[in-house]
Amino acid sequence: MLILHNMQISGNCYKVRLAARQLGIALQLKEYGLGSGLTRTPEFLAKNPIGRVPLLELEDGRCLAESGAILFYLAEGSALVPKDSWTRAKMLEWMFFEQYEHEPYVAVARRWLAFEPKEALEALEAKRHLVPEWHAKGNVALTVMEKHLAKNDWFAGAYSIADIALYGYTHSAAEGGFELSRYPAVSYWLKRVAAQPNHIPLSERW
Amino acid sequence: MLILHNMQISGNCYKVRLAARQLGIALQLKEYGLGSGLTRTPEFLAKNPIGRVPLLELEDGRCLAESGAILFYLAEGSALVPKDSWTRAKMLEWMFFEQYEHEPYVAVARRWLAFEPKEALEALEAKRHLVPEWHAKGNVALTVMEKHLAKNDWFAGAYSIADIALYGYTHSAAEGGFELSRYPAVSYWLKRVAAQPNHIPLSERW
Repeated sequence: MLILHNMQISGNCYKVRLAARQLGIALQLKEYGLGSGLTRTPEFLAKNPIGRVPLLELEDGRCLAESGAILFYLAEGSALVPKDSWTRAKMLEWMFFEQYEHEPYVAVARRWLAFEPKEALEALEAKRHLVPEWHAKGNVALTVMEKHLAKNDWFAGAYSIADIALYGYTHSAAEGGFELSRYPAVSYWLKRVAAQPNHIPLSERW
Repeated sequence: MLILHNMQISGNCYKVRLAARQLGIALQLKEYGLGSGLTRTPEFLAKNPIGRVPLLELEDGRCLAESGAILFYLAEGSALVPKDSWTRAKMLEWMFFEQYEHEPYVAVARRWLAFEPKEALEALEAKRHLVPEWHAKGNVALTVMEKHLAKNDWFAGAYSIADIALYGYTHSAAEGGFELSRYPAVSYWLKRVAAQPNHIPLSERW
């Protein structure tokens, strides 16, 4: 069985769990708690030298990092990846957008504002001056999504792994201090994603 | 003919020019100078709401942003994209790695340290405190590349768009203050990339 090296609260890991569930792919989960240091052990760094989850491990031990690449690997050939070459490229455009323009602000704000353990308040204080930049740039990304979703139901043709990739941290953006009520088209899209067959919430244990 | 909305000094735009040249794809280039404000006009934002180049425009006006998505679109079906599903996923892994772990530090250091126009020294001074973080995190990414290249000639099977994506800002990293001599396997790989048929340097005009 495929092993997913997982952190339950991570939106990047959630994307993989959600796609796998909707694709009917079984995963064995191995949990890495935030601040546990488990992604910095020599054993883990041998699997993924950048020390991050999610990490997908095949039965023969080969490993694949980067949520976008894992989503593509699991979903290729399914209805979650558009058959048409242009639409597939647009799907990848939104997935790269998510990792470059969205996640570094929307996810990072949530990570520090919602999940920083009390022991590390000093670390949070050292980041505090970055909060306005996270909010400003995250709101730029949400505004770009809003413009697209005002005219389209999904990011690339039908519901695809681009929607899953963007849902991961958008649906939980309020935890990072973002006001989703400012984005009505995004809010409706969040409901459409959550209404898809076999949807699971981030908190759902495997 | 395809139009590439281009900034000559941008490594992200260079990736697209290099892949197109090696694929024998003709491009019409439209230049956007650094600091020209041309990517912030209403006309450009209508094409790409995030206001960035590279942007590929088809003859019918459809537009594709994000260098990784453009590379995939241009190269799919060619020898620059592995046929095998696992190897293709590993290619995407390195391309997402490049945009998340490498470009935000290696490219951004180069952009501010090598290209900031004299008029904007104040803007550079406001960024100066970030230079050590750019260098620290950029060196982490280069170290991960070094480990891989010590055992492999290319990032995903044969020479692919993952190599082109990583070459874009690695080959010019010295301009951002990185010491490539610390990374011998990376340095040899740079030479292998530059020796590929139809390679063009970043500076080459179309």
